[in-house]
Amino acid sequence: MKRKLNIAMIGHRFMGKAHSNAWRQVSRFFEVPLDPVMKVICGRDEAAVKGAADKYGWHEHSTSWQQVVARKDIDVIDICTPGDLHMPIAVAAAEAKKVIFCEKPLANTLAEAERMLEAVHSSGSIHMLCHNYRRAPAVMLAKQLIDEGRLGKLYHYRGSYLQDWIVDPDFPRVWRLEKARAGSGALGDLVSHTADLSRFLVGEITEVAGLLNTFIKERPLPASDKKAPVDVDDAAISLMKFENGAIGTIEASRFALGHKNHLRFEINGSKGSVAFDLERLNELELYLEEGPDSGFKTILATDSRHPYIESWWPPGHIIGYEHTFIHTVCDLLRAVDKQEIPTPNFEDGVRNQRMLDALERASASGRWETL
Amino acid sequence: MKRKLNIAMIGHRFMGKAHSNAWRQVSRFFEVPLDPVMKVICGRDEAAVKGAADKYGWHEHSTSWQQVVARKDIDVIDICTPGDLHMPIAVAAAEAKKVIFCEKPLANTLAEAERMLEAVHSSGSIHMLCHNYRRAPAVMLAKQLIDEGRLGKLYHYRGSYLQDWIVDPDFPRVWRLEKARAGSGALGDLVSHTADLSRFLVGEITEVAGLLNTFIKERPLPASDKKAPVDVDDAAISLMKFENGAIGTIEASRFALGHKNHLRFEINGSKGSVAFDLERLNELELYLEEGPDSGFKTILATDSRHPYIESWWPPGHIIGYEHTFIHTVCDLLRAVDKQEIPTPNFEDGVRNQRMLDALERASASGRWETL
Amino acid sequence: MKRKLNIAMIGHRFMGKAHSNAWRQVSRFFEVPLDPVMKVICGRDEAAVKGAADKYGWHEHSTSWQQVVARKDIDVIDICTPGDLHMPIAVAAAEAKKVIFCEKPLANTLAEAERMLEAVHSSGSIHMLCHNYRRAPAVMLAKQLIDEGRLGKLYHYRGSYLQDWIVDPDFPRVWRLEKARAGSGALGDLVSHTADLSRFLVGEITEVAGLLNTFIKERPLPASDKKAPVDVDDAAISLMKFENGAIGTIEASRFALGHKNHLRFEINGSKGSVAFDLERLNELELYLEEGPDSGFKTILATDSRHPYIESWWPPGHIIGYEHTFIHTVCDLLRAVDKQEIPTPNFEDGVRNQRMLDALERASASGRWETL
Amino acid sequence: MKRKLNIAMIGHRFMGKAHSNAWRQVSRFFEVPLDPVMKVICGRDEAAVKGAADKYGWHEHSTSWQQVVARKDIDVIDICTPGDLHMPIAVAAAEAKKVIFCEKPLANTLAEAERMLEAVHSSGSIHMLCHNYRRAPAVMLAKQLIDEGRLGKLYHYRGSYLQDWIVDPDFPRVWRLEKARAGSGALGDLVSHTADLSRFLVGEITEVAGLLNTFIKERPLPASDKKAPVDVDDAAISLMKFENGAIGTIEASRFALGHKNHLRFEINGSKGSVAFDLERLNELELYLEEGPDSGFKTILATDSRHPYIESWWPPGHIIGYEHTFIHTVCDLLRAVDKQEIPTPNFEDGVRNQRMLDALERASASGRWETL
Repeated sequence: MKRKLNIAMIGHRFMGKAHSNAWRQVSRFFEVPLDPVMKVICGRDEAAVKGAADKYGWHEHSTSWQQVVARKDIDVIDICTPGDLHMPIAVAAAEAKKVIFCEKPLANTLAEAERMLEAVHSSGSIHMLCHNYRRAPAVMLAKQLIDEGRLGKLYHYRGSYLQDWIVDPDFPRVWRLEKARAGSGALGDLVSHTADLSRFLVGEITEVAGLLNTFIKERPLPASDKKAPVDVDDAAISLMKFENGAIGTIEASRFALGHKNHLRFEINGSKGSVAFDLERLNELELYLEEGPDSGFKTILATDSRHPYIESWWPPGHIIGYEHTFIHTVCDLLRAVDKQEIPTPNFEDGVRNQRMLDALERASASGRWETL
Repeated sequence: MKRKLNIAMIGHRFMGKAHSNAWRQVSRFFEVPLDPVMKVICGRDEAAVKGAADKYGWHEHSTSWQQVVARKDIDVIDICTPGDLHMPIAVAAAEAKKVIFCEKPLANTLAEAERMLEAVHSSGSIHMLCHNYRRAPAVMLAKQLIDEGRLGKLYHYRGSYLQDWIVDPDFPRVWRLEKARAGSGALGDLVSHTADLSRFLVGEITEVAGLLNTFIKERPLPASDKKAPVDVDDAAISLMKFENGAIGTIEASRFALGHKNHLRFEINGSKGSVAFDLERLNELELYLEEGPDSGFKTILATDSRHPYIESWWPPGHIIGYEHTFIHTVCDLLRAVDKQEIPTPNFEDGVRNQRMLDALERASASGRWETL
Repeated sequence: MKRKLNIAMIGHRFMGKAHSNAWRQVSRFFEVPLDPVMKVICGRDEAAVKGAADKYGWHEHSTSWQQVVARKDIDVIDICTPGDLHMPIAVAAAEAKKVIFCEKPLANTLAEAERMLEAVHSSGSIHMLCHNYRRAPAVMLAKQLIDEGRLGKLYHYRGSYLQDWIVDPDFPRVWRLEKARAGSGALGDLVSHTADLSRFLVGEITEVAGLLNTFIKERPLPASDKKAPVDVDDAAISLMKFENGAIGTIEASRFALGHKNHLRFEINGSKGSVAFDLERLNELELYLEEGPDSGFKTILATDSRHPYIESWWPPGHIIGYEHTFIHTVCDLLRAVDKQEIPTPNFEDGVRNQRMLDALERASASGRWETL
Repeated sequence: MKRKLNIAMIGHRFMGKAHSNAWRQVSRFFEVPLDPVMKVICGRDEAAVKGAADKYGWHEHSTSWQQVVARKDIDVIDICTPGDLHMPIAVAAAEAKKVIFCEKPLANTLAEAERMLEAVHSSGSIHMLCHNYRRAPAVMLAKQLIDEGRLGKLYHYRGSYLQDWIVDPDFPRVWRLEKARAGSGALGDLVSHTADLSRFLVGEITEVAGLLNTFIKERPLPASDKKAPVDVDDAAISLMKFENGAIGTIEASRFALGHKNHLRFEINGSKGSVAFDLERLNELELYLEEGPDSGFKTILATDSRHPYIESWWPPGHIIGYEHTFIHTVCDLLRAVDKQEIPTPNFEDGVRNQRMLDALERASASGRWETL
C-alpha cells in the first residue's frame, strides 16, 4: 500500500482545472511512489469552488487559504491563483512546512519571488514551479539531444509565443490586463514560458534589450459602458545574451492574429538544430549535419523510447496539452518520495523573474540591462 | 443528484485502458445526464485484470464475462476484447437487456456482425460501436461543413491508414497476425477505420475492387525458435464506388515505414475539399474556392466554436488521442438518457463489415464486388 | 568550337514554350558537348507560329511538318503536338534518320506507340521521350537512394496527380476533353506521368485494376451555345502489382479542388521511405530507420551535391518547373554526342502505354488486366 | 520594331549570372516595350570575363569599367560588383547619363549611398536598386493585400534570414568576411533584404536596437596556412519601431544550421496576417479572421491571377529564384520606356542603408538608435 499524500489546491479556474486533472490522472498512467489524495480545493467564491470540487473530484472545498494552509493533514499546497497571491500563500505554506507546487510565473515582481525563495530556503520545504512545457516529450527529447552534445556548441535561441485573443479593441479590460492583479501582460504570461525554455535548453541569460508595447491603451470594463486604461503590455520583444556565448531573440504577443497558442522555439548549434511548436507538441524538428541527405526531420515523439510516452499509448497516438501537467506532477511525487528538490523550482522562478525584470528595465531605459 | 449507470468492461489491454480513461474522465469535463460508475472490469488472467482494476480505477474485477453479463446491477457492457469474442458477449448482453458499447470492428466476420445486429434488434438494447475517430473535433467539423453543403457535390474520397510496426521480418507472429483470433490484418484493424470515415462523410459504398497482400509469409512465434505462417494481410488496397457517384481509394498498410499511426483522408467536392491526418488530429485542412486568395487552410480545431472543445481548454491547447473516446462515451451517456440509439451503432458495424467482406471477396476474385 | 545541332520543333503551344526555353537555356548553364541551334518551329496557324518563332527565338518558322522533316539541315525533330500527330511525325522523322525527341505520352494508343518504336528500331535513330519529371533533382536523388539500396526492398508505391481545372461544369469541351484528339483524359495526361515515375523508381508493372470515370458527361463547346459529349475520363484510379512484389495505387483527377498540379508519390521500403510533391519540386522527403531520432526529413535538393544543381544557384535558391526540361535536353545532347540512346525513350513510352492500355481494359472489364 | 536598349554589366560572378539570365529571358516571356541587347560584360580577370561573355551570351567583354561607362552606345549600366565598387561606378554612370541598375545593398556605407543618390539626382538618371525578392509573385500578392487594407492596421513584422554556409570554423576567410571589401557580414548581405521587405510591406522604420555578433573571430585564409581575423558580423539581431506604430524583429545569421536560404517574414495586422518563406517562394500564407473556419491558408501563387504569372506557366507549375530578377528587369524596361523612376531605387537604398547604419550604431552603443 502506497503512502498517501494529501493535496490542497488554492485556485480553481483554468489552472485549477489543469492541475486537478493532473492529480486525478497521474497514478492511472504512471508508476508513482506516493498516492496523491485530492483533499481540498480552495477559492473565494463559495458556489464556484464547491462546483469545482464536485466537477474535478476534490473531497472538500474551502474559502480560506489561510485555514487550508494551517491544516495539519495537508502535505502539499498547490498554488493556482492569480500572481498577486503567490507570495503570501507560498510564504505561509513554507512556514507551515508544506511541499509547495506553484504555477508560473513565480510572482508578480522580482522582490516577491526572492521573498518566496528565502521562505523555502529557511523552512527547508520541497518546492517546485509548474513550467509544464519543459515536460512535453518532444521538449525533453530536445534537452536530451543537447545534453548529449548532439547539437554541438549552441549559437542561437529563437523564441516566440504568439496569441491573438485581444486583437479586438472591444475585448474587455479583464484582470489579466490590469497590472495590479496580473503584474504584467505578455511579459509574465508568455515571455516567462519561452524564457524558461531558453534557460532550460541553452543556459543562463546575462543581458537583455527589449521593448514592452501596448497597442490598445484603453478598453471597456467587463459588463460596463466605461473604459479603463490597459496598463500591461500587449506584446514584448527582446534580444538576449547567454553566458555561453549564444544569442537569442524572444517575441511574445497577444496581437498576432491567426496564432492561438503558438509557442515556438528553434535552437541552432554547431552540429545541429532543433525546433518545437506547442500547437504540434508531439513533434520535434531536428536537423543534424549529415551530408547530402541532411534536412530537418519531424520526429513524432510518441514512441515508447521517448520521454514519458511508455505510460501512454502506442506510437503515433498523440497526447495533448494537459498531459504536460501530469508529467510535472509525476516528477514532483517522485521527488517528494526521495525528499529531493525537483526542477524547475523557486530558484528557477527567481532567475526567470530576473529576466522579466531586466526586460522591463530595458524597455524603460532603452538600453541593454544585466540580470 | 444524477442517476448512476453501472459499467462493466470486458477486456483490459490497449482498448481497455482507453475506455477506462473515457469512463473516468467524461463527467470531469462534460455535462453528462448520467453518472457512470466503473463497476467491474473483466479478463481471463486474474492477476492482470486485478492490476488493471487498481490502476484504472474499477471497483471490482472478474474473470468470467458470463457472470458479469448476468449481473442485475450492471447497466452497460463495454466490449474491448479481441474480435473473436465480440459476438458471443454482445449476444449475451443483448439477451440480458444491457446497453452495449462495442469496440470496432464489430466482428471478425460479416455473419457474426449480422448476428449481433439481430440480437440488439430483437432485445431492443441500446447499442453503439466505438469508431472513436468520428469524434475528433476536426472530423466532426468536416462533417458539419459537408452537411451544410460547403463542399458541394462530392467527387473523391482518398483514404489511407499507414503504420510500420511489422516491417521487421523478425517481428513475432502475435495474435493480431493470426486469422483465427484477429479475423484479418490491416483489413479489420485499419481499413475498417477509414471505411467508416468514408461512410460517415461521403455516403454508402456500393462496390469495391481490391487486393489483400502479405509481404512476409512466415514469422517467429513469440518466445520460440519456431516459425508460423502469417495468414492475415499486411496491407490492403482498394478502389470504391459510392451510391452518390463519388469514387474512392483506400490504402491500409503495416509496411509503410515512417508512418506510425497515419490515418489520413481527403475529400474533394465541387465547391471545396477537406483533409485530415490523425497524427495531427487537432487540425482540419479546408479548401474553399474563393478567387485568387484560395488555398488549403489549416484550421486548428481547438476553439470553443469547434465540436466538443468548449469542455476542454482555451484555443490552441491541443487534445490527444484518448479524448476521442471521451467524446464517444459522452454521446453514449446522452443517448442512454434519452433512450435513443446513438451513431455509429451495430447497423454501421454491419455495413462496415459488408465493405470488408466485399474487399476480401474482390481480392480473391480479381473483380469488383458489390456490397 | 562545338559542333552545332540543328533543331526543328513541331508544335508551339504550352509544350512548345517549355521546349523552346530548354533549347535556349541549356548551354547557358550546362557544359554540353553540342551546340543546339533553334532552327525552325512548325505549326498549322502561320500567324501564331511566326509569333512563337519571334518570341521564343527560333530562326525560321514553317506550317508544314512534312517539309521540315524532309530538310537535310535538320538534326533533331522535337515533337510537341497533340497526341494524334506523334506517330506520323515520328515515323517520318525516323525514316529521315533524325534524332527524335517526343513529348509524353508517346502516342494516343498502344498500337501507335508500338509503330513508333518499330520505326526508330529499323532506322537506328536516337530517340528520347520527354518525361521531364524524372529530372527534377529531388526525383533523381530518390532514384540514387533507391539504387544504392538505402530504402531496402520496396513494398509500396502511392502515386497521385491531382488538378482542378475542369471542376466547373461550364468549363468548355476543349480538345483535351475529346477522345479523337487527346486519346484520353486524366489517363494519358496525368496517369502517364505517375506511371512513368513508378516504373523509373520501383520497377516494371505486371497487372492493374482500375476505373476511368467521367463526372460531367456533357459540356458547352467553346464559343458556342451547343453542348457536346465528354468522351474522355475526368479521373482515373488504379491498383498495381509490380514484378518485384511491390504493390501500388495511382489516382489521377482533374476534379480534385484545391490542387493545381499536385503530382505526389511516396515509396515505402524495408529500410526507408521517400516522398515527392511536384508543387514543392525542390524538396525530397526521406525517412530512414535510425532509432529514436527517426522522422521524415525534408531535404532541400538545391545543393551542389544534388543532381543537376551545380549548374544553377547556391543552396536554398530554388529552381522551377521549366528547369526539368533543360535537364532533359542536356542529357539528350550528351547522349547524341556519344551516339547513345538516352532514357526514357520510346521503349519506355511503349511500356507506359501498355500500362495505360491495361488500365483502360481493366476499367471496361472490371477485372485485373495484365500488361 | 522595338527600340533597342544596350546593356553593359559590370561584374560576372553570382549576381552577374543571375542578371545575365534576366536580360536574356525577359523578352522571351514578357511583353516589354524595349528590346534589351546584351552588349558588354565587364570584369577584372580577362579570361574569366571572356568565359562569362560566351556562356551567358554577351556580345563583347571588357576589363575596364571606366571605358564601358564612357561608351556612347551603352544605355544601361548594371552594377553587380562587390559593394566597394558600387559608388564609384554609379557616380561615373550618373555623370555619363546612363540608366543605372544596381545590386543591393546600394553601398558599403551610408555616406557612399548618399553620394550615389545625389549623383542620380543631379544627373537626372533613371535608377533602380535590385531588391529582387519584392517581385516574387507571392510577395507582390502580400503587398496587394496590405494595400487593399485586407490585413487592417499592422502590428508586427517578424523577419529572419538564416543561412549556414560558414558554421564550419575551417571555412576560409573569403572576401565576404572582410570588412574592407564587403562592408559588413550578415548585416549588408541578409538584414538588408529583410529590412527592405519590411519597408516595402509595413512602412518606414524610425528606431532600432540590436546586436552584431561574430562567433568565429579568426579563419584560415583561402589556400593558405595562415589565419586572418573576421571583422564582419556572423549574425545580426534587431528590434524595430515603425512610423505607423508597428514593432518588429529581425534576425539574420550565417550560423543557423539547416537553413540554406531561409528568408522568412510574417506580418500581423488587426484583420489578417501573411507569411512568406523564400525557400518556398511560390507560396503565400494568409490568415483572415473569418469565424470558426479561420486558419492560415497556403496560396500557391502560380495562377494567372497572381502577379507576373500570366507570362509563365499554368497553375501549379512553380517558378524559381532567378525569375524574380526577370520580373525586376521587366519593370525596369517598362519604367525606362516611360522615363519614370521605378521602385525600389536609390532613395530606397539610402533608407535601407540608414537602417543598417543605425543597427551598427545600436550594436556599438547598446541603445536604441534613430534612423
